[in-house]
Amino acid sequence: MTRDPVRYAMIGGGEGAFIGPVHRIAAAIAGNCRLVAGALSSDAERARRSGEAIGLPPERSYASYDELLQGERERPAGERAEFVAIVTPNHVHAPAMIAALEAGFPVLCDKPLTDTLDAARAVEEAARRTGGLVGVTHTYTGYPMVRQARALVGSGELGAVRRVAVKYTQGWLGKQEDAVGKQAEWRIDPARSGLGGAFGDIGTHAFNLVEFITGERMSRLSAEIRAAVPGRSLDDDGAAMFHLEGGGRGTLVASQICTGDANGLEISVWCEEAGLHWRQEQPNSLRVARRGRPEEIWTPGADRTYLDETAMAVTRTPSGHPEGYLEAFANIYHDFAEAVRGRAPQRPVYAGLHDGIAGMRFIQAAYDSSARGGEWVDL
Amino acid sequence: MTRDPVRYAMIGGGEGAFIGPVHRIAAAIAGNCRLVAGALSSDAERARRSGEAIGLPPERSYASYDELLQGERERPAGERAEFVAIVTPNHVHAPAMIAALEAGFPVLCDKPLTDTLDAARAVEEAARRTGGLVGVTHTYTGYPMVRQARALVGSGELGAVRRVAVKYTQGWLGKQEDAVGKQAEWRIDPARSGLGGAFGDIGTHAFNLVEFITGERMSRLSAEIRAAVPGRSLDDDGAAMFHLEGGGRGTLVASQICTGDANGLEISVWCEEAGLHWRQEQPNSLRVARRGRPEEIWTPGADRTYLDETAMAVTRTPSGHPEGYLEAFANIYHDFAEAVRGRAPQRPVYAGLHDGIAGMRFIQAAYDSSARGGEWVDL
Amino acid sequence: MTRDPVRYAMIGGGEGAFIGPVHRIAAAIAGNCRLVAGALSSDAERARRSGEAIGLPPERSYASYDELLQGERERPAGERAEFVAIVTPNHVHAPAMIAALEAGFPVLCDKPLTDTLDAARAVEEAARRTGGLVGVTHTYTGYPMVRQARALVGSGELGAVRRVAVKYTQGWLGKQEDAVGKQAEWRIDPARSGLGGAFGDIGTHAFNLVEFITGERMSRLSAEIRAAVPGRSLDDDGAAMFHLEGGGRGTLVASQICTGDANGLEISVWCEEAGLHWRQEQPNSLRVARRGRPEEIWTPGADRTYLDETAMAVTRTPSGHPEGYLEAFANIYHDFAEAVRGRAPQRPVYAGLHDGIAGMRFIQAAYDSSARGGEWVDL
Amino acid sequence: MTRDPVRYAMIGGGEGAFIGPVHRIAAAIAGNCRLVAGALSSDAERARRSGEAIGLPPERSYASYDELLQGERERPAGERAEFVAIVTPNHVHAPAMIAALEAGFPVLCDKPLTDTLDAARAVEEAARRTGGLVGVTHTYTGYPMVRQARALVGSGELGAVRRVAVKYTQGWLGKQEDAVGKQAEWRIDPARSGLGGAFGDIGTHAFNLVEFITGERMSRLSAEIRAAVPGRSLDDDGAAMFHLEGGGRGTLVASQICTGDANGLEISVWCEEAGLHWRQEQPNSLRVARRGRPEEIWTPGADRTYLDETAMAVTRTPSGHPEGYLEAFANIYHDFAEAVRGRAPQRPVYAGLHDGIAGMRFIQAAYDSSARGGEWVDL
Repeated sequence: MTRDPVRYAMIGGGEGAFIGPVHRIAAAIAGNCRLVAGALSSDAERARRSGEAIGLPPERSYASYDELLQGERERPAGERAEFVAIVTPNHVHAPAMIAALEAGFPVLCDKPLTDTLDAARAVEEAARRTGGLVGVTHTYTGYPMVRQARALVGSGELGAVRRVAVKYTQGWLGKQEDAVGKQAEWRIDPARSGLGGAFGDIGTHAFNLVEFITGERMSRLSAEIRAAVPGRSLDDDGAAMFHLEGGGRGTLVASQICTGDANGLEISVWCEEAGLHWRQEQPNSLRVARRGRPEEIWTPGADRTYLDETAMAVTRTPSGHPEGYLEAFANIYHDFAEAVRGRAPQRPVYAGLHDGIAGMRFIQAAYDSSARGGEWVDL
Repeated sequence: MTRDPVRYAMIGGGEGAFIGPVHRIAAAIAGNCRLVAGALSSDAERARRSGEAIGLPPERSYASYDELLQGERERPAGERAEFVAIVTPNHVHAPAMIAALEAGFPVLCDKPLTDTLDAARAVEEAARRTGGLVGVTHTYTGYPMVRQARALVGSGELGAVRRVAVKYTQGWLGKQEDAVGKQAEWRIDPARSGLGGAFGDIGTHAFNLVEFITGERMSRLSAEIRAAVPGRSLDDDGAAMFHLEGGGRGTLVASQICTGDANGLEISVWCEEAGLHWRQEQPNSLRVARRGRPEEIWTPGADRTYLDETAMAVTRTPSGHPEGYLEAFANIYHDFAEAVRGRAPQRPVYAGLHDGIAGMRFIQAAYDSSARGGEWVDL
Repeated sequence: MTRDPVRYAMIGGGEGAFIGPVHRIAAAIAGNCRLVAGALSSDAERARRSGEAIGLPPERSYASYDELLQGERERPAGERAEFVAIVTPNHVHAPAMIAALEAGFPVLCDKPLTDTLDAARAVEEAARRTGGLVGVTHTYTGYPMVRQARALVGSGELGAVRRVAVKYTQGWLGKQEDAVGKQAEWRIDPARSGLGGAFGDIGTHAFNLVEFITGERMSRLSAEIRAAVPGRSLDDDGAAMFHLEGGGRGTLVASQICTGDANGLEISVWCEEAGLHWRQEQPNSLRVARRGRPEEIWTPGADRTYLDETAMAVTRTPSGHPEGYLEAFANIYHDFAEAVRGRAPQRPVYAGLHDGIAGMRFIQAAYDSSARGGEWVDL
Repeated sequence: MTRDPVRYAMIGGGEGAFIGPVHRIAAAIAGNCRLVAGALSSDAERARRSGEAIGLPPERSYASYDELLQGERERPAGERAEFVAIVTPNHVHAPAMIAALEAGFPVLCDKPLTDTLDAARAVEEAARRTGGLVGVTHTYTGYPMVRQARALVGSGELGAVRRVAVKYTQGWLGKQEDAVGKQAEWRIDPARSGLGGAFGDIGTHAFNLVEFITGERMSRLSAEIRAAVPGRSLDDDGAAMFHLEGGGRGTLVASQICTGDANGLEISVWCEEAGLHWRQEQPNSLRVARRGRPEEIWTPGADRTYLDETAMAVTRTPSGHPEGYLEAFANIYHDFAEAVRGRAPQRPVYAGLHDGIAGMRFIQAAYDSSARGGEWVDL
């Protein structure tokens, strides 16, 4: 029997945005989602123009998220949006998410969850009150080889995690003159970005990846964060040492002033019996270096029957046909849409509300530690 | 002003097919195409089931391509399919294409163009007669770095092409017991595959990549082709030496029995001033090795403003966010759909009818040379 | 006019040793050194056997370093050892070095300089008193591409150093049962290794590499060190955050329990205009990622005339003929021997006494910081 | 009991030579060889100067190879050279080798064996007559991972060899103006180089590597060779298709005009159960891609106890301490010197006379095939 796609509405993501179009392509690749409505900008005229540009029916291209939530609620059940995607600057995440939850819509929100830890707690409270579903698009957990890494650690065959090294380095804010353009501007403005300097913007991805692959919570950290480029008020460069709850130790670097780096997310997880190594820019290779054995390169592919089911489930092509960032993003959309249908996997393989809040705690802890000269802080 | 997507119908690509779903995801990513009809199988009941499974409206899920062409012709102009995608086994390409052209539909066909060179000539004749547009999905020309390579050679700054080495090696037909499953079966059946053993199936891709990047026609070749695995009648392994019309020389390997290889398409093009090196499995890196200079690694990204416009035009994400095979495929769909709208680029960057026929001549020449003990044969 | 090689004697490096034979091969490759005497073990009989095994003349195979120093002093000037290489366990470095300096011999010592910071100061005092030359074999500074990295930073064209990430991870002490065999045993014994757990053994290499490439001193650090494998008293795993005197920040990981890693020394140095990236296991590639340009891969080769003279001077082969660890080591020997002859380069490109002492300060600071819960400590 | 090194004399390798110094460093690394005499140039004065520069005793720095052979014969047994290394331009190989064999000296000769096939047969005849030992320095068989590849194929566990792709591409003769300097000049001069254009100079290496790893003889080939750069009379660029005696097929490219390439020797050997892939410029990695398993990266290291003994025997350092070209060369010297002592391994792992002659047959066959328009020729 055929299945209709899950209908969704988008808040944010209008003209000039980076991540909004990525969400829309991701949903198209996912194959089980369809965009039916949007409030693409907080500016009513811009929202209208943006909706038209992407082919939204005018009556479902709303001037604000409040209008969208009300408008969609009033539509017949078989037609109204079934979930809402939020892709605004960070400071709008919490109010939009809370409004959506209260209007009865599940929410898939871009990361970080909110602009402040207090706002995150308010979202948590709203989710508890309404019983609504929340997902956070930590894209990188959508890659098959990241899911494979998680499965290998989770199987227990590699033993305990001992050390982790994760870094997320970009160079695109390397100079004062780089911080221009719509997406750069709000990212370095504390009022819109909140705790979202480099540690919020990409540090949370690194943090999430650590917790996702190890299956453990980060328990403590010592951090040093700074605004390295003169004239900035938000952090653009920082590092931390951390502990995992299971006894492992780690280092984390998050910086947007690492000249020459594009999207340099890399992680090594050393367990007792093997080390796992993954680089976002070569996402289809997972190096598995076992004790006393030649190193192995794991790759995805519909014909790689030895892969974990969570990796296989998101592999569209035979081995050697590389999938990338957009497909990883699509995998988050796919799984979230299935959850909206009530077919969530038992152990979800995308970030949920708890992960989103953990991310906010991580940022807050890093700020606190840094402010206190690197003191170790519990998360 | 908003633009509606270009409507298309699909012939082939039903249950169990590999390339049909790839075409559909590609079209979804392209963003300017919409599937509106299909004749997904030559078996009427299977066609119906397949159409339902992917959500085609029942009245536009046809039992045969003849019904599809007739049915779509009768629809109002603003609703009917604007082009037809053909993703059947090779022996159906020519009759379906000719029927579509005669019914007035532009055609985007999977490679190789047809099953025999005679069939290719019949298609050529039909295209001349009808003036219809034909595209061939040589996927790999959709990759930004392949287009960049073509642009670098085409600019003249690298001087003449001297030597080319291209290989396309897979291992998935490495053993007799591998040739099971829908897509394997027809590929090794001469009645359905035509000249499409390994040289037809993947050798044409390698051939097309040579001509695409160098901007030159292959003029002569000496080949040796064989069915290496006992019991096969179609070639599964072969190699050739060739000449380019501009004086360059090259080698080409196409094999589906190279155990352990996934989709190993690699090309090196050495010009007087630099060598260019590209591997499909790491498609976002183009190595440019200039005389007397450190090697350069070119990568795509919306922020790589020094890239050629043909590469930039198909880059959806900032640098470091890898795009892959499906996006490359999407780029072919995108450009073909724009051509259907009448906005074809001056120098098309996807394979057209002439390239498709050249591919058939290449296969025929390889067969002929091999049959004559490796004699050099003109294309 | 022909030049005789510089004669040297070796202290340590007898049967079963790892680093002694490496020093001897290195000296052979260097081409300007000749081993003429040795006291290869602290055990007289073992020293004799070891000397015989490597072909030392019996009368110059001494039973102790005191005998060696005395014996060589008494030889005629044209025959006696011109410098002494010390390759014993760490706790012997200081007494042997001081004795050698006082006997008038220049000393090339394996790293770390000594077992304790106090011992390092005693060596410093002896060097000051005697005016003797001291070198420390921080092998990795012998690689052409490391010298090239230093030259690129030193030229000023890349701007200030902003961030450094260095890690030195090995897996060979990953389990309790791994710590067997001569070289493992003394390395985990505090009485012989001194401050030389993982931070002393390999952390100092990482530290030295940071200072060598950046041309800056490390000014402060916060570290966390531990003995992760049960039953050990010396650290086998740790990490630090640090400051450079010029304002750059960095992270350093040194661990010998990173299962699956062989000799994983890697460094990234991000400057304002470019990032530099080097991996010891692929030592002939230096990635130079400039702002707004394709990444460059610099490689050595006698024909790479654009390389810095300090890199060219240690390149024996044309490009593409890989040199490795032993050649890097040889380069240290070569330069030190030339310095012994009185032909030291103006800016020496191997580690000297000050670097050795800086390394000991680094280890001490890391221990102190770790003991105080990660407090930031000045070096 | 200690062992004295094996004494050797060198013919050729004087001022300005490339390969002579490489041989001497290799012998120094080998550790079981000692240079005691030389006739370093065919010009007497140059020979004298060259001998002095490298520290030969004046009385053993001979003015010609005839003088050398006579002079050394007359020395006492415990002092005279025990073998002769020949590193002259190609046309001198045969006369010097024959003279040395007749004077009773084993010979280690640079490749190709001789300048013509006739000359090779004369050497063969001399070796038969005298019973003398001949080795050819096909350097690349000295790499541990090449020996490991041979062992894996030889074990039978990978099944029959099906396809081979080998290429040896360099760019250093890419332009007319490149062919200057001592080593370039004789290489492009037919009188001195013989059949030694690109196919002789580096094609023989590629050929030898194929036979070494597969353990099979090449039985037939079809080749196309040319002098691509105007004004040359010797080939600088070419390719071939070939058959192995066991039924496998292959392609071979040898070119010195591949701009941007340094020393690009690469080989893939696909067997029934796995593909093996090795690149000279990253010599410490052997990729083993087995059917239905993650790819494996084999690396050398004294601690890699699962390696074949022929690989282990030539590994000086722990894993992760890269060895390179000079060590590979040293391994040839080491094994040949042991053979001179009468301790040859049962299955020698360096090229011997038969391999050298096979190499000459390969060159001759390639020339013949090319002259006849690519006709298939038996070796």
